[in-house]
Amino acid sequence: MLTLSNKANSMPASPIRKLVPFAEAAKKRGVKVYHLNIGQPDIASPKEALDAVKNATPSLIPYPHSAGIETYREGLAKYYQGININVTADEINITTGGSEALQIALAITCNPDDEVIVMEPFYTNYNSFALQNDVILKPVATTIENGFALPDMAEIEKRITPKTKGIIICNPGNPTGTLYTKESLVKLGEIAIKHKIFIYSDEVYREFCYTDEPHFSCMHLKGLEQNVILLDSVSKRYSLCGVRIGAIVSKNKEVMKAVLKYAQARLCSPAYGQIAAEGALNTPKEYFQAVRSEYIQRRDFTIEALNKMEGVFSPKPMGAFYTIAKLPVDDSDKFAQWLLEDFQYEKQTVMVAPAAGFYATPGKGTNEVRIAYVLKIDDLKAAMKCLEVALKQYPGRTI
Amino acid sequence: MLTLSNKANSMPASPIRKLVPFAEAAKKRGVKVYHLNIGQPDIASPKEALDAVKNATPSLIPYPHSAGIETYREGLAKYYQGININVTADEINITTGGSEALQIALAITCNPDDEVIVMEPFYTNYNSFALQNDVILKPVATTIENGFALPDMAEIEKRITPKTKGIIICNPGNPTGTLYTKESLVKLGEIAIKHKIFIYSDEVYREFCYTDEPHFSCMHLKGLEQNVILLDSVSKRYSLCGVRIGAIVSKNKEVMKAVLKYAQARLCSPAYGQIAAEGALNTPKEYFQAVRSEYIQRRDFTIEALNKMEGVFSPKPMGAFYTIAKLPVDDSDKFAQWLLEDFQYEKQTVMVAPAAGFYATPGKGTNEVRIAYVLKIDDLKAAMKCLEVALKQYPGRTI
Repeated sequence: MLTLSNKANSMPASPIRKLVPFAEAAKKRGVKVYHLNIGQPDIASPKEALDAVKNATPSLIPYPHSAGIETYREGLAKYYQGININVTADEINITTGGSEALQIALAITCNPDDEVIVMEPFYTNYNSFALQNDVILKPVATTIENGFALPDMAEIEKRITPKTKGIIICNPGNPTGTLYTKESLVKLGEIAIKHKIFIYSDEVYREFCYTDEPHFSCMHLKGLEQNVILLDSVSKRYSLCGVRIGAIVSKNKEVMKAVLKYAQARLCSPAYGQIAAEGALNTPKEYFQAVRSEYIQRRDFTIEALNKMEGVFSPKPMGAFYTIAKLPVDDSDKFAQWLLEDFQYEKQTVMVAPAAGFYATPGKGTNEVRIAYVLKIDDLKAAMKCLEVALKQYPGRTI
Repeated sequence: MLTLSNKANSMPASPIRKLVPFAEAAKKRGVKVYHLNIGQPDIASPKEALDAVKNATPSLIPYPHSAGIETYREGLAKYYQGININVTADEINITTGGSEALQIALAITCNPDDEVIVMEPFYTNYNSFALQNDVILKPVATTIENGFALPDMAEIEKRITPKTKGIIICNPGNPTGTLYTKESLVKLGEIAIKHKIFIYSDEVYREFCYTDEPHFSCMHLKGLEQNVILLDSVSKRYSLCGVRIGAIVSKNKEVMKAVLKYAQARLCSPAYGQIAAEGALNTPKEYFQAVRSEYIQRRDFTIEALNKMEGVFSPKPMGAFYTIAKLPVDDSDKFAQWLLEDFQYEKQTVMVAPAAGFYATPGKGTNEVRIAYVLKIDDLKAAMKCLEVALKQYPGRTI
């Protein structure tokens, strides 16, 4: 029969994208929409990345090596060594974005019905990758009141069964902006050792940390060399989301051998993206300093503005460029749609991501939204003003 | 336990790549290796493709739309309309190479243990994509004596069970170079209609047809609009293998909706590659005429040279840039390795792809190799000379 697979039928449509038609309709009505709904930075990419592509003079574009262009992997190994992650080019396989990195990591480690623990709320596409690999995600609650910090290790251990293959963490976190402490990661590492499970460590926001400490990576954990699979991407680091270049990094040789077999099946990661990413390795420190202080300014403004609004609470995120805010509304799905469909303030409105889509547990996050503070300060000011006015007018407000 | 998945353990390593270390060792010994083992064309890409990237002036590289850049999809729809495939931009989803196109097509249509029929020999990575999706490939034999033409439809129908979801064809074919006749495709279409199954039509070599007829696509089949899923790629068409741009094309709306959900999960296809591919749409006809006559010359030379060697037989392929040749050897795996390890003729040797890797049935193809005639005529001449000499010296020769 010309029917679709069960997976195709149960694959969730993106919770953010279902609002897109409403945003488009608003724009057609002449309303300016501030996009706080997606982690699409407006920061310019480093010149070094863009110039590398511009200055390349290929006469054709052949397949790069399935593991990635050798000089790029060598350069990337040096980048990691510079942040105290001691890996060689052989311990890196370039992937088509961080998405493919997690997708392959789950595929090579999990059998159908194996379980992977994840802190809730979490990046929605983890659901899709789990579904594609017949993996069951076991969410462990983290709370807005506690700034979405890693929970008590006992809470995590409770979820471990003989089917558990590992724990996914995202640090700094999407959608929460939470930066895990070194102490909590050390404890997480102890659990992984004790139960012989993997840590899938999604660190694509590594450069966006707003404490004075350097980012603490799971690759820094002692004795976890066989357990940790690092998932990385250049998307956010260099505003190169569209180039689709990420990496799987691990000291576990069996893991890297299996990754290569999967990588060979799809031939290679994009050549131009690898050229851009290799060029980006020459980005001067000043670039990141400027980006970091820009985001700190945006964050400080956004969080202060949110917490000043009546009934609104946002923790102060120490990483990435997201926050989850609790709003005084009946249902943030309805509210987000209403913002686009029925509201405007001086011909402007705001698009936010309803947070329920980031939770696996039904009913959670229904009065929360994710806000990506990825716009210039003036735009953020206008967006926050809209939100403030909207919360006073929304028919489903709860205060 | 820190063990790998069953899929990771059973994923085949690339049958070609296992010879790579021997090729590298040969090069280190100062032996020139002619690579007839991989479909990596040496033809220059159209200037229009390379210039599009060079002349782009992005300040950052954001995510393109998950379905592909709209102007590119519109341009691609026009390209298809120009070859009498009447589709709109909505019926196209850009993918990360033809590899992802087949990968997604299987994922959205097949449940675990569903069966897909494929003509044997076939492109090795079909195995990997089937394995990744728990799909069972059911090979139907085609024979070198018959130029690997589509077999009697009764042979195909015999393989159809209630578990059969569709038939993969590759036309023109890799690894055989076979171009299917319109008549045989019409009959195949009738079977698909009768049994309500999909046709996954891999047409990435469409531009490489050496008859006077235009390429006949499964998208041309009448009444098959709901059944045909076209898998395409710009890799070979424009010598852009490394840009990783392909497409899934179908008139079946349910299929396209499911494709988009899968596409959203991995966010987008590479931006630079899409820019190159969009630029390539302006490639003048003369480019293809020149490429076509170059390949015809290469094919004619190669096939004639092969058939002149004692005990060698190759059909005359009418498409793509491969042929499968039967050699008078005990085991083409051993022979291919021997060519690299123990043989040289005037400091030169040849790398070929042993054909057993293209067969699912054990024992088949063991005296066949795939030859990709992707080198300049002078290199092909030297390569054929090496092969001729080698076949007289190889200890495992059978004549």
